[in-house]
Amino acid sequence: MKRRLLLVSNSTLHGSGYLDHCQQNISSFFGKDVKKVLFVPYALHDRDAYTKTARDKFKSLGGGNTFRLLKSLYDNKVVTEIRRRVMEDGVPYMGSSAGTNVATVSINTTNDMPIVYPPSFSAIGLVPFNINPHFLDTDPNSRHMGETREQRITQYHEESDTPSVLGLREGSMLLVEGNKATLLGTTKARLFIRGKPTVEYEPGSDLSFLLTDTN
Amino acid sequence: MKRRLLLVSNSTLHGSGYLDHCQQNISSFFGKDVKKVLFVPYALHDRDAYTKTARDKFKSLGGGNTFRLLKSLYDNKVVTEIRRRVMEDGVPYMGSSAGTNVATVSINTTNDMPIVYPPSFSAIGLVPFNINPHFLDTDPNSRHMGETREQRITQYHEESDTPSVLGLREGSMLLVEGNKATLLGTTKARLFIRGKPTVEYEPGSDLSFLLTDTN
Repeated sequence: MKRRLLLVSNSTLHGSGYLDHCQQNISSFFGKDVKKVLFVPYALHDRDAYTKTARDKFKSLGGGNTFRLLKSLYDNKVVTEIRRRVMEDGVPYMGSSAGTNVATVSINTTNDMPIVYPPSFSAIGLVPFNINPHFLDTDPNSRHMGETREQRITQYHEESDTPSVLGLREGSMLLVEGNKATLLGTTKARLFIRGKPTVEYEPGSDLSFLLTDTN
Repeated sequence: MKRRLLLVSNSTLHGSGYLDHCQQNISSFFGKDVKKVLFVPYALHDRDAYTKTARDKFKSLGGGNTFRLLKSLYDNKVVTEIRRRVMEDGVPYMGSSAGTNVATVSINTTNDMPIVYPPSFSAIGLVPFNINPHFLDTDPNSRHMGETREQRITQYHEESDTPSVLGLREGSMLLVEGNKATLLGTTKARLFIRGKPTVEYEPGSDLSFLLTDTN
């Protein structure tokens, strides 16, 4: 298993500049030998502008709308190819937000609006669980009556055969190297396993157990 | 055109009990002659419990998860039949939140998590536009970096041939009687028309122009 993934919750953290919160992680993830990065701009409408910004600021993160990103990956027939290159050839994969969602089992736990209809919610499947990026704790003072994030993920787990969901708060990211997974960043992550109580993990935690298929 | 619809943004408004904010509208919408209400409990997992609660409290609103609701409507082959009964036979339709989303052109502008994959995002189509229930204004003090509601709807309108989107804030609802549409409730609504500036409408506004197919 050659996969090397850096799955970031969000590209900008409040109070700091674009990529600032994970800049060091990106540098050490790609290392000095990587000269070229393939940027997949499918998640935003204006792909040229998005690519230019990415090039200018090394925003190689893949944020934007998850439905649009996954649909374009299918339309361009690259889902299987990306999986093969990452899993078999060890090409490093980095994603943030939408780019993190599409790296998992499915996009069933995205926060995005379903603005386009992809041929499936199944995603690239680089890990055997799902991620909820931008994970948000329930605000006890909120007057808004929409479901909380926790309620939404719980609703997902009411469906049969649904994988575990790792809630990555803004500022956190997951580093996967082969069969080892480590939580990085500045915030904790919350793990939802179907039928079990949720568990909080501190930055630095070893989450390799999530990479076994039995979750 | 016999349709009669009451499309509510949300079932509970902060600070008041279930249905309180639209109880009077419901009474006058159904009137004294309606003895039976068909309640569609597909949007929540435990249908029996949901139906019981609905019966107990006359929660005939259809809230829950929009994806689950629409998928079940398709699985049970009732999408076309509901449309026919409402549009041709004048059976009154009432929905709240998820029940409001599925009454429109498509569920592309729901806020819900895509926990199941429906065979299409096209919905019952009782009106020729879309609704975003629980519409939320941008909070200038938020430290969360996810897209704002306005950004999400704008992303939707970057796609071609997308209908107008009526953002119904919590506490507001739309009454449709044939070709007349009126905004009711206590909060304003925000209208997004593709390629045009957004417009705010006060409760009581006549929104019948939205019912023509040219929007």
